[in-house]
This record gives sequence, C-alpha cells and structure tokens, in this order.
Amino acid sequence: MQKQLHPNISVDCVIFGFDFEKLNVLLVERTYLHPETKEVIFSDYTLAGNHVYVDENLVDAAKRVLNNLTGLDNIYLEQFYAPEDPGRLLKKNDQLWLKKEGKNPEERVVSVCYFSLLNCKEVSIQKKDRNVDWHPISEIRNLGFDHDIILAQALKSLQVKLQNEPIGYEMLPLKFTLSQLQKLYEVVFDMEFDKRNFRKKVSKMKYLIQLDEKQKGVSHKPARYYIFSRDVYEKTKSDILNFSV
Amino acid sequence: MQKQLHPNISVDCVIFGFDFEKLNVLLVERTYLHPETKEVIFSDYTLAGNHVYVDENLVDAAKRVLNNLTGLDNIYLEQFYAPEDPGRLLKKNDQLWLKKEGKNPEERVVSVCYFSLLNCKEVSIQKKDRNVDWHPISEIRNLGFDHDIILAQALKSLQVKLQNEPIGYEMLPLKFTLSQLQKLYEVVFDMEFDKRNFRKKVSKMKYLIQLDEKQKGVSHKPARYYIFSRDVYEKTKSDILNFSV
Repeated sequence: MQKQLHPNISVDCVIFGFDFEKLNVLLVERTYLHPETKEVIFSDYTLAGNHVYVDENLVDAAKRVLNNLTGLDNIYLEQFYAPEDPGRLLKKNDQLWLKKEGKNPEERVVSVCYFSLLNCKEVSIQKKDRNVDWHPISEIRNLGFDHDIILAQALKSLQVKLQNEPIGYEMLPLKFTLSQLQKLYEVVFDMEFDKRNFRKKVSKMKYLIQLDEKQKGVSHKPARYYIFSRDVYEKTKSDILNFSV
Repeated sequence: MQKQLHPNISVDCVIFGFDFEKLNVLLVERTYLHPETKEVIFSDYTLAGNHVYVDENLVDAAKRVLNNLTGLDNIYLEQFYAPEDPGRLLKKNDQLWLKKEGKNPEERVVSVCYFSLLNCKEVSIQKKDRNVDWHPISEIRNLGFDHDIILAQALKSLQVKLQNEPIGYEMLPLKFTLSQLQKLYEVVFDMEFDKRNFRKKVSKMKYLIQLDEKQKGVSHKPARYYIFSRDVYEKTKSDILNFSV
C-alpha cells in the first residue's frame, strides 16, 4: 500500500510584459548569503509565486500574487501547467533557500502555473523590499527551482493561445500601430514576419478597427492607430475556425 | 496568518474514444446503496481517476490509471487543467460517496487533469469489478464531483489542440479513409464540414499519405486508405505556423 501524497500547494506566475521592443518576464531576485560570513553563496532569479491558503481558489492565489506585484486586479491570467516531477525542488541551491525561508526542504510542493500578460509601459511594479524587475526573455537562463521548465512551457502555451485567440492586445495600449502589433507577434514567436503579408492578414481581422487618428510627435512618418474590438471579435469568432487535418 | 494548504492530490483522466461514428468518453459507474436497506440512493458516473503517491510523478499517476483500465502503456496523454474551486467535492452525493470510500469528505483534493485519445475499436476495457464503459459525449450530463466542468474543459482543450496539431490520428486505426477522418473532426468540433472543402484542406497536408490500397468487403464504393506520417509532420510543421492577429 503506497502512501498518498499531501503536498504543499503553490501557484507560480509567468508574467509576460511587452515594451514595444522585447518580450520580458517579471523575475524576483534570490540572493543567499552565508549565514555567518554574509558572503554571497549564490544569487539568481525565480518566477513570482506563493502558497495557496486552505480555502483559497487556485486562481485567487495567482491573482493575489499579481496584485501584490502590480497593485492591479483583473489582469489577464491563464492556467497552463502543473509541473509533474516530484524532484522539482531538490537542486542544492533550492534546498539551501527553502531551509533559509523556514520551509521543510523535503516536503513536496505541487505547483499550478499561470501566465499573465501586461504592457510594461502601463504597469508600475511594486518592489517593496524585493528586487523584482522585467528581464528580456532572450536573456533568461538558470532560474531557480524548475522555473526554466515552467517558463518554456508558458512561452509555448502563449504561442499556441496567440495562434487561436487575439490575446496579444492585453500587452498593447488601447491604441496601437500596426508596426507595434507586428513587433509583438515577432517577439512572441521569435521570428520576423514580412510586413506586407502581416498587413494582409491584419486586413482580414474584422475586430481590428482603424481609427481616424495618427501618431503625434514622432520623428518618422506618423502611423495610423488601431484598436481591438472585443465585441466584434466575440461576434465573428465562430467564422475563424481553422484546423490542420 | 492564513493556513497553508496541504491537500490530497489526485489525477483525473478524460479518456476520449472514437468509434467511427461518435466521440465517446470512458466513465466509471458510481452506485451508492443505503448502508442498511441496500436500497439505491443514487447512481451516476464519474471520470476515471486516482490518488497520487508520495514519490510519484503526476503523469505517471495518470499512466497508472490508464494502464489499469486498458492494459496499455504509451497512450496519448495531455495535461490540460487543474480545477480551481476549493468546494469541488462538496455536493451531497459526493460527500456520501467519499465517506463510504473511507475518505475524509472535508479534506480538499487538488486534481491535475489529463485527457487521452483512443480508438474504441482497438482497446478492450478491463472492467474487473467496476462498471466502466464508453458513453457518447452528447449524452453525458450530471457527472459526479466537478467532472462536468473537467469534461467541458477537456473537450475545449482537445479542440484547440486539434486546431494546432494533427493528434486525431491517435483515435484512428493505422490505415483510415478520408470519410473516417472527416467524421472524427465533425464529432470533435460538433459540426458538419463540407466534403469538398475538407478534402481540399487534406490535400495540403503533406503528412497525410495516400496508400495504393482500398477498403475491402464494404457495400459502398471502396474508399482509398491513408496513413499519417509523423516523420513528415515533424519535418514540415514549421511551415504550418498560422495565427490570428
């Protein structure tokens, strides 16, 4: 008779942010000092996360993490993954860190992961006493715990979702140019798109509404603004069904 | 200071099966008899699931459930969801059932859910002492626990996945006809497709290989067989990137 699992439960949040140039992820610094000499033993980054309370809905725990970091409610949130490996917290540095935090490093923690989407320019991160900041996704490696795996899975889920639903608008201001929209797709898929093909695709999307308004105070030729209409999207989305056979 | 959650962890499996006519789900009957009079108090169905053991990888727990029901390993499995509501097991019948099973009905159970895909005709279900069988998805309602929610989420995930990856072949025999393939898509998306449009789409899929072999012993005009080539798919899939803007 094998023993049933009663782990600690946490949520981990992959918070993506677009700054018109790069795709970024919000990371929390984790610096471990030698308990006596105070020399830095290691310093790295993790995703934002927290434990789930006894009567708490899992998504409410994720909302609490996000609110704590941004002061905002109603941020786009999507559950995408629960890491499966029982040994996900057993790396040496992770064990040191858990002990320092007063946790039992041998206790298994099952995590349910969420990704969320933000416009970096419109959010101010509440640092409090933590060193938490945006990092370009292309430069992120060797995160603490199994967070490299979680981040890779989050990016894959974001790409799939973006192929099926126009969620990219969550990372753009209300009014945006087509170049900004194209850049967003390029950084998420990590590839360049041909401008003409991209605009052809855009022209078919009834929920992308052209405004009678252009950029002001830019050094290049001012571009026209667009907005995303959720109403039009909801009304037309059943036409969009597309599948590979 | 709020108390941290240490729930029981389970896996729930939505096992989809195609029988060339309908999309089916494997369900387990749950009949509760009055402890003294043995009169049936309620009888309904649930998805297949089980608890996770202390050192067990979550996906291995799901494989164990599937192996137990089918005798098979290497069945297609996809993690898709963890129900979020702390009150997911609090319905009256569920509480009666948990007590009868010797469980603490007040304990929270966090479940990680998987869907899997089978060809009903090629699998024999190992019933042992349980009443477990395929049920047409169109006739399933009022499942035990929160399994209606899990099933709805699984169907949505299957649809999204099928729009992005040709996983439908997991539910077909090695050799199949285009009518069988079309039927599969129709039952998953619950809509009819125009035969000509469907075949036009199919003709673009390089990984769908026409065989020099036709059906035998059928009363209608024998149709040609096709196979799915995973090799060709893996080599050509980067061409397929398609997204809505």
